[in-house]
Amino acid sequence: MQKFDSSMMDFEERVEIDDFESEVMERIYSKPLLIKRVNTTSQIAIVGANVCPVESLDYEVPENELVNEDWRSRRTVQIFQYILLKWAFALIIGLSTGLVGIFNNIAVENIAGFKLLLTTELMLKHKYYKAFAAYAGCNLGLATSAAALCAFIAPAAAGSGIPEVKAYLNGVDAYSILAPSTLFVKVNVIGIIFGSIFGVAAGFVVGKEGPMVHTGSCIASLIGQGGSRKYHLTWRWLRYFKNDRDRRDLITCGAAAGVAAAFRAPVGGVLFALEEAASWWRSALLWRTFFTTAVVAIVLRGFIQLCSTGTCGLFGQGGLIMYDISAAKVVYSTPDILAVILLGVIGGILGSLYNYLVDKVLRTYSIINERGAAVKILLVIMISLLTSICSYGLPWLATCIPCPADASTSCPNTDVSGNYKSFQCPPGHYNDLASLFLNTNDDAIRNLLSTNTVKEFHISSLFIFFVAVYCLGIITYGIAIPSGLFIPVILAGSCYGRLVGRLFEPISKLDVGLFSLLGAASFLGGTMRMTVSLCVILLELTNDLLMLPLVMLVLLISKTMGDMFNKGVYDQIVKLKGLPYMEAHPEPYMKHLIARDVVTGPLITFSGVEKVGNILLALKNTGHNGFPVIDEPPFSDAPELCGLVLRSQLLVLLKGKAFSKDRALAGNKVLRKISELDFAKAGSGKGLKLEDLDIQEEEWDMYVDLHPIANTSPYTVVETMSLAKAAVLFRELGLRHMCVVPKSQGRPPIVGILTRHDFQPEHILGLYPHVRFQQ
Amino acid sequence: MQKFDSSMMDFEERVEIDDFESEVMERIYSKPLLIKRVNTTSQIAIVGANVCPVESLDYEVPENELVNEDWRSRRTVQIFQYILLKWAFALIIGLSTGLVGIFNNIAVENIAGFKLLLTTELMLKHKYYKAFAAYAGCNLGLATSAAALCAFIAPAAAGSGIPEVKAYLNGVDAYSILAPSTLFVKVNVIGIIFGSIFGVAAGFVVGKEGPMVHTGSCIASLIGQGGSRKYHLTWRWLRYFKNDRDRRDLITCGAAAGVAAAFRAPVGGVLFALEEAASWWRSALLWRTFFTTAVVAIVLRGFIQLCSTGTCGLFGQGGLIMYDISAAKVVYSTPDILAVILLGVIGGILGSLYNYLVDKVLRTYSIINERGAAVKILLVIMISLLTSICSYGLPWLATCIPCPADASTSCPNTDVSGNYKSFQCPPGHYNDLASLFLNTNDDAIRNLLSTNTVKEFHISSLFIFFVAVYCLGIITYGIAIPSGLFIPVILAGSCYGRLVGRLFEPISKLDVGLFSLLGAASFLGGTMRMTVSLCVILLELTNDLLMLPLVMLVLLISKTMGDMFNKGVYDQIVKLKGLPYMEAHPEPYMKHLIARDVVTGPLITFSGVEKVGNILLALKNTGHNGFPVIDEPPFSDAPELCGLVLRSQLLVLLKGKAFSKDRALAGNKVLRKISELDFAKAGSGKGLKLEDLDIQEEEWDMYVDLHPIANTSPYTVVETMSLAKAAVLFRELGLRHMCVVPKSQGRPPIVGILTRHDFQPEHILGLYPHVRFQQ
Repeated sequence: MQKFDSSMMDFEERVEIDDFESEVMERIYSKPLLIKRVNTTSQIAIVGANVCPVESLDYEVPENELVNEDWRSRRTVQIFQYILLKWAFALIIGLSTGLVGIFNNIAVENIAGFKLLLTTELMLKHKYYKAFAAYAGCNLGLATSAAALCAFIAPAAAGSGIPEVKAYLNGVDAYSILAPSTLFVKVNVIGIIFGSIFGVAAGFVVGKEGPMVHTGSCIASLIGQGGSRKYHLTWRWLRYFKNDRDRRDLITCGAAAGVAAAFRAPVGGVLFALEEAASWWRSALLWRTFFTTAVVAIVLRGFIQLCSTGTCGLFGQGGLIMYDISAAKVVYSTPDILAVILLGVIGGILGSLYNYLVDKVLRTYSIINERGAAVKILLVIMISLLTSICSYGLPWLATCIPCPADASTSCPNTDVSGNYKSFQCPPGHYNDLASLFLNTNDDAIRNLLSTNTVKEFHISSLFIFFVAVYCLGIITYGIAIPSGLFIPVILAGSCYGRLVGRLFEPISKLDVGLFSLLGAASFLGGTMRMTVSLCVILLELTNDLLMLPLVMLVLLISKTMGDMFNKGVYDQIVKLKGLPYMEAHPEPYMKHLIARDVVTGPLITFSGVEKVGNILLALKNTGHNGFPVIDEPPFSDAPELCGLVLRSQLLVLLKGKAFSKDRALAGNKVLRKISELDFAKAGSGKGLKLEDLDIQEEEWDMYVDLHPIANTSPYTVVETMSLAKAAVLFRELGLRHMCVVPKSQGRPPIVGILTRHDFQPEHILGLYPHVRFQQ
Repeated sequence: MQKFDSSMMDFEERVEIDDFESEVMERIYSKPLLIKRVNTTSQIAIVGANVCPVESLDYEVPENELVNEDWRSRRTVQIFQYILLKWAFALIIGLSTGLVGIFNNIAVENIAGFKLLLTTELMLKHKYYKAFAAYAGCNLGLATSAAALCAFIAPAAAGSGIPEVKAYLNGVDAYSILAPSTLFVKVNVIGIIFGSIFGVAAGFVVGKEGPMVHTGSCIASLIGQGGSRKYHLTWRWLRYFKNDRDRRDLITCGAAAGVAAAFRAPVGGVLFALEEAASWWRSALLWRTFFTTAVVAIVLRGFIQLCSTGTCGLFGQGGLIMYDISAAKVVYSTPDILAVILLGVIGGILGSLYNYLVDKVLRTYSIINERGAAVKILLVIMISLLTSICSYGLPWLATCIPCPADASTSCPNTDVSGNYKSFQCPPGHYNDLASLFLNTNDDAIRNLLSTNTVKEFHISSLFIFFVAVYCLGIITYGIAIPSGLFIPVILAGSCYGRLVGRLFEPISKLDVGLFSLLGAASFLGGTMRMTVSLCVILLELTNDLLMLPLVMLVLLISKTMGDMFNKGVYDQIVKLKGLPYMEAHPEPYMKHLIARDVVTGPLITFSGVEKVGNILLALKNTGHNGFPVIDEPPFSDAPELCGLVLRSQLLVLLKGKAFSKDRALAGNKVLRKISELDFAKAGSGKGLKLEDLDIQEEEWDMYVDLHPIANTSPYTVVETMSLAKAAVLFRELGLRHMCVVPKSQGRPPIVGILTRHDFQPEHILGLYPHVRFQQ
């Protein structure tokens, strides 16, 4: 008995390798072939600067004999267990994401607090150079740790993570991100959590919400793996969750929990998952997501109450609301609204410029980062030094301001956070720029949003801080640390808003703190291009419902302005990474093409009862993941489409070895050998591979019945269906394969198979360059 | 030249009338036939107690030569105009709904205020019988006016309106509701607005939010009609909006605007439209809905600011937040959470009991209401008297309570609203039940939600009020007045919550006002079964973000409890009205059937070039709205499916008279005679009817080419596709007709057509009663 090996094969009829179905299969290819295929379809996924193959996900519910048999055999109690488990998983995701969020917060506040306390102490002793050395040294150490984590251990932890989650929920698995081997995800989660903590504490202009979303999704993915077989921590019926559809639902919950934990915004989290992350949505999912974020909210509230007693070190001053501005009186009239409209317009433009620059920088960085781990770390070190120089150097430009008499907190402030940093100033004075730069990002935002403190920051200081943060934010995203985009945008935006508020002071009655909130809204609208979810997140962040009409107005204006110039920042990154994302709407030119037009390459089909050898050959020599099964006489009167089998299903069937000597239906024989549960999808690293099969030479000429596993209800379109409508069908139902059937009779029962790659503009415009300009 | 008339026809081959496609067509049937058809398919729509036929809506984008030609001829400027107009419409919907909301509020507060002032004045003079006469008389007058409006002028204005809007957005036009003749809608809008004002002012336990949603949708529908041709207030390109798809989008915006205006909850409005009202959703729509509700919020805020100066009569005390409870300190620990969980469980059960009783009462009322307008009004009068007796009589059961020393408002209060009504009590005392009963519903809720006033209401008073309001709410819904369900549920729920709060006083630190909010949440969760939207609406109503975790918890518990017993109240009413609603998920037994199983009756198809006479016959003798077009030799090698034509398209084509003597393709001839714009869908009352055609006898034998109007890309399923997957396709893509094609070759190219009626459980279980019990 020999292992299956390609060298032992010598067949006349070798199926030619084609790129008809351009999905890339894992590992069974030799390396050069992989790269060739990837190149021909221009599907290069840049994940943490590594080129990775992408795989499509199966969100369709298969219907075949096995599944039906399986449903019949399920008892009510099992179905009840399944439902209960769904909710239990949501609970676990909520709990763990909430705990990670709290841990993250406590760690950042304590590490950054220690660093800032040290610096302040040295400053008070007028040891300015030592203070800088301590400050920059701490930053450098933290930054290098974060970079090392990302460069050596968890390369997928770098970046925001939201684009990858978005792509996953659209049906694209960017391989190393969410559903690989369990170990990999675990390493990844740890990489993200600690990388994010070190990165944020190192004073980078990065946020923790992108990594939190990523963490939440990874936790959900881990839970979806269903325990560990190694430690016998698994149940048989847990395997019901081992499919892409249930995993997608869990990851949606995880993404929502991430936002909820990062911003303490549970409703905002649900809406973020709905508006930005998810591509498909069901009302049942809305409810489950809501439950998950409710759990997060309860965990957070509990810990914050606990921490307010001082048990969490330097963390614990804030309440449940991160930036409470409800103290401000909201009064506005016509001139204020005009000012706000202007703020929205310019904010939208600056936001879309931010997207443009991030895109440019990211392209440069991805080239630099390709050169290896050392170069990655060097880049992080350089950016860290630059950030330290800015943070420590720029405050020297500011003049000392006398403390106001009515200051609510002590002034000057030697605390970790707080408004009035003394820096180099004499007693009774404070340095306003230092209060912004020498703080954590959260505290800086809190200071910028503070109300009833009009004169606290000088206009020139605000301007310097705005320019510095805007630029630092752009050049920081893309280096090898986990980096969220929300906080940099909110930071720059709220500074911009406060600046505008100061400029409009003579004609506007609105508090500058509220202007600051509106500025943040305009930047978020201009970069992220969300509406309802941003609105709710901002409300939950600031606890000021009375500002709602103005926030809505600003978001609408800035999103409109931004949409004139480019796409939202996450869509841009998804595109940059080369992930084959299915857009919600078909492109206008697709109306002028029909489904048949984009079907390419030869089609490989199987008979209802097929020779084992033929199947092995096809699996070996093509990268296809779906094969149509055609019933031919004597099993039917004329050739007709019986269904669709997946590569993964074929592997399981071959492994089960339900072969027969003659070409006949297997009947119940197959059902006795394998059950639906054997088809549970494992993490990518663990699934059955062609090399695992153990087919003996005499078995090559035997037959195997594909009927029990064939999905007998694949979605089909007629070849003359317009491509636009086919794309709508494909996207709305979350398909992986769509069968194209002939229109006229007397032809083979299937024309081809469409996959998501066939709907990509690059593919279509490569075939028909002229259609681009048709309406 | 004679009008088309059935009497002049005498054909051998009369197509037998079937109920294969069980959609009911407007008016072309003789009355008995209509009723027969309606009965056979058990599709009786009870709309304001009138049996109405229902019509499906076309949400699919057609693709045929005419549309393509039309797109080619559209210039960029036209497309820009179209987009601009979309937003202008959203603006108009927002503005007008906001204005209606304000008008409604001002009218109710002034009318009810006058009534209450009059009663209080008489009470102060100890003229108790006169006071009752005045109170009950005012109520009766207002109630009768509202009932007369609904009974005689606008029968569709009765009830909540939300179920009808929900059904419309699912693709069912319940005929007299949203898209009938313009005049009808106008009358309806006025009926709803004034009916709602009178009804609410009459002291009924009804709300204004259902009617507001209905109003918003009707306004949107009116705007979608695109001006008035009679007064030349229309543009040619406005007709681009005359299709079901664009109208659906407008009505979604209208529904969101209605909630936003009723509760001053713009984000809640968007989420309501998303979670409860709409069946299909696109991110573009999210954005437009958000814009609409932002406009509503701005209009409301402007007027409320204006009214706070006292220019709106008795309206103007409240701020933008309706029930502000942010003054309460939110502190809770484990015993509170246990109390809250118990509150949620019982609240959920009471909520689902509410649904059950409403359903029972509604069934009784619909029988009563069928007897004519007089009986309808009589029923309203009886309920009004009962309400008056309860409101005036029950406060006598309460004992007078001495005024608290630290009362924030004057006590006893002779104002319109306010907490401490003196009623029959001596000076320095107040009657707590009167403060609840002798107030508008809004003020009663405000009193119940008031914080830091633990002892204000006696436990027995709360109990009496709760029982009275719970029962009155149930028996009031279904009488012939516009009546929302939100306010009765919130009223009963907040009273229940306060009662629970009082009972748990010894062990709980949570304010009774906050308990009251949670009680309202539990009732809403138990009846409406929404999650995120209710949560956001409650937040926007009460401005207390810190309560978010608890509100989420209560909503989750009460929804879970409710779902154990029955469906949400709106789904229940939709079912009761017999509207063929397409559920989001297929029933489990559908997996065991295939598409072919539910196709019934003979299929009527047309040739690509068909005799005019045949088309007229088919239109006359069947109720089908969609006809497959089959290309036959010589136009193709073998019979093949060319596309699908709609009844409305055929009528326009026949009206255009592009006939030819011989069986040949018409080419551009048709395009010169009619354009895509001629197919614009008018309001139902206005569309072309068969009787409007003017076909001469010699034209009966001529041919007409159907190719230019046939939708060449209809969605198809193979006959062996499982019914469950076909249902998913049908629902997700919002189809009206789905073609079933044969699997094997050598058969006619189409097996049948599926419509929404074929997916209804009644239809399927009628055919296959045994599948019900299969998993």
